[in-house]
Amino acid sequence: MPMRQITLISTGGTIEKTYDEHAGTLMNRSSVVQEMLRLLRHEDTQINTLQLMQKDSLDLTDADRQRILDAVRLVVGPATDDPITDPNSCRGVIILHGTDTLCETGEWLHQTLIQNAEPNHALTVPVILTGAMRPFEMKRSDALQNLNEAIFAAGLLAPGIYVVAHGNALPFPGPKKDRERGTFIQTNN
Amino acid sequence: MPMRQITLISTGGTIEKTYDEHAGTLMNRSSVVQEMLRLLRHEDTQINTLQLMQKDSLDLTDADRQRILDAVRLVVGPATDDPITDPNSCRGVIILHGTDTLCETGEWLHQTLIQNAEPNHALTVPVILTGAMRPFEMKRSDALQNLNEAIFAAGLLAPGIYVVAHGNALPFPGPKKDRERGTFIQTNN
Amino acid sequence: MPMRQITLISTGGTIEKTYDEHAGTLMNRSSVVQEMLRLLRHEDTQINTLQLMQKDSLDLTDADRQRILDAVRLVVGPATDDPITDPNSCRGVIILHGTDTLCETGEWLHQTLIQNAEPNHALTVPVILTGAMRPFEMKRSDALQNLNEAIFAAGLLAPGIYVVAHGNALPFPGPKKDRERGTFIQTNN
Amino acid sequence: MPMRQITLISTGGTIEKTYDEHAGTLMNRSSVVQEMLRLLRHEDTQINTLQLMQKDSLDLTDADRQRILDAVRLVVGPATDDPITDPNSCRGVIILHGTDTLCETGEWLHQTLIQNAEPNHALTVPVILTGAMRPFEMKRSDALQNLNEAIFAAGLLAPGIYVVAHGNALPFPGPKKDRERGTFIQTNN
Repeated sequence: MPMRQITLISTGGTIEKTYDEHAGTLMNRSSVVQEMLRLLRHEDTQINTLQLMQKDSLDLTDADRQRILDAVRLVVGPATDDPITDPNSCRGVIILHGTDTLCETGEWLHQTLIQNAEPNHALTVPVILTGAMRPFEMKRSDALQNLNEAIFAAGLLAPGIYVVAHGNALPFPGPKKDRERGTFIQTNN
Repeated sequence: MPMRQITLISTGGTIEKTYDEHAGTLMNRSSVVQEMLRLLRHEDTQINTLQLMQKDSLDLTDADRQRILDAVRLVVGPATDDPITDPNSCRGVIILHGTDTLCETGEWLHQTLIQNAEPNHALTVPVILTGAMRPFEMKRSDALQNLNEAIFAAGLLAPGIYVVAHGNALPFPGPKKDRERGTFIQTNN
Repeated sequence: MPMRQITLISTGGTIEKTYDEHAGTLMNRSSVVQEMLRLLRHEDTQINTLQLMQKDSLDLTDADRQRILDAVRLVVGPATDDPITDPNSCRGVIILHGTDTLCETGEWLHQTLIQNAEPNHALTVPVILTGAMRPFEMKRSDALQNLNEAIFAAGLLAPGIYVVAHGNALPFPGPKKDRERGTFIQTNN
Repeated sequence: MPMRQITLISTGGTIEKTYDEHAGTLMNRSSVVQEMLRLLRHEDTQINTLQLMQKDSLDLTDADRQRILDAVRLVVGPATDDPITDPNSCRGVIILHGTDTLCETGEWLHQTLIQNAEPNHALTVPVILTGAMRPFEMKRSDALQNLNEAIFAAGLLAPGIYVVAHGNALPFPGPKKDRERGTFIQTNN
């Protein structure tokens, strides 16, 4: 079978918070992406990782979001009229992101990469945002589940911007964080 | 959002083997489905469970496979010309199955439910087989990952018969177990 | 074999901190003692639990420490000249305590229950303080290890006040928290 | 604090059984000792490991038991009239052993090293046998608990031969496996 290529961009957020024994608090200090990937078993899939930043998503600036966009464009490659024919080419981008402002980033990526895309520069792969309500380092975290779903979805979804978590794939525009229930919901259907 | 309905039929296999302390061996004795589901977090999804049998898949008889088919038909509901319009209706069937003969069952379900389907009795939901190379009760098992992927896929895939595991969704006919690598591969493309 | 009786008094501390998904922080809100005990396998041992308070040990007041002392005295029972002859009687007291001020509480219990004990009121069981550098709810926590060692030590140690953690049983007076190494050390030998 | 030295001799048994994905069964093939030790946090303790054999204890021969005895003697060092004064010297020996014949090995070590010890060749450290009812590789195994207790006990127990498991330290002669309850019990008191 052809090898699937997925790129995982980590930006921080609850999913990657680790415990600092001296301070006694949870912080975004280093990525736990490699540790999460070791717990999953993927066949015919190569997952590239790009550790872009380590931030609580409430602290993300416009400049940070621009860096995320630049990273997505870098990974997706130069726009082209041709459909992707190389089976080894990029099949999807996953962004690990804090849940508090994940949907703002998702809406902005949708506006920039889809609504306002230049002619003949259509997005050819799915771009999937995901995060977690409990840090990966905690027992009973939803982190590994959501990352697993995002990687699986990268091989199935049509080009577009999505949030994937808790069993659902929700396309932008529309998704919002539901703070009461601790999940994402679709608001436009 | 509408509530997604998924039905999980368990038949046994490595994924559900548990350790018998007296015998010192792994056996199919009781289903671990409920314990697995407690470790996943699903929103807007109702997962019905049907504990059909507890067998090593090498011991499955023709009568056992008929019971599996009967269960799928029961869950999918009476065939109809109308597309499913009730958002609460069944969105997918998952079958937990031993990996050794999973593909035989998949091929047979494909022949019966798709190739030889009576006119106007088309399958309207995906039927997903999954299993594991290591029992759920073992550390570093692929059981929870594969179940998670199967549940996620049940909301995304088109009607058809599939094996979902290790990041891939492979449609029947075609998939085979690759014993060397310990996974499933597609043989017809 | 006679049944061993151990009493576990929980006061809070890092060991019992749980994650609040709304606030995104770790807090002392409810005891995780029962969940920890379910993960251990004890024969011929009955573990009574007393949920005294849920506090970061930096917030413990003199009144809180008095309540801890009262609880220990209640559990140990009325002082007596007779050695314990009832095999079902209390064989040890364990106090789950935040590590930051655990040694202050230990020194004070030592002064009160041993140094200044009234004649004929000698302590007849070990009183063991323990805690954790990482909350039980985190992966790779030392919480279950330390609780396991404390329960085991309760059946072996002579009467006295101890901190038990990371493989060591250190008698008071003397133990201090070593913040650099994240453990307890004996300072008087 | 002085550094404690413990030596861990592994012989196989249920505690070290791992899952063979091709055969679909549990086997004694390689030691899991290093992986277990990584999950525990010990201060001022050096744990040496000696992988002696990988056998189900029902398959142990007299020659195997002689090798275990030789290993214990090697670790304990040459007999001497002097008490151990070097704080870096051996403080205890732990033997990982299948539970089915653990007590036979314990009785024999007791006869050889204690009852029939030559004059002035008294055992100066505790020798602790332990094992597990469920392999370490299974969820909810008692393996890590028992190893943790054995290491902790090695720093506390008087010289002698013991089985340590499930919260108890039982000195030989006397302990037997209770197959009904899945634990060890003392039969001579």
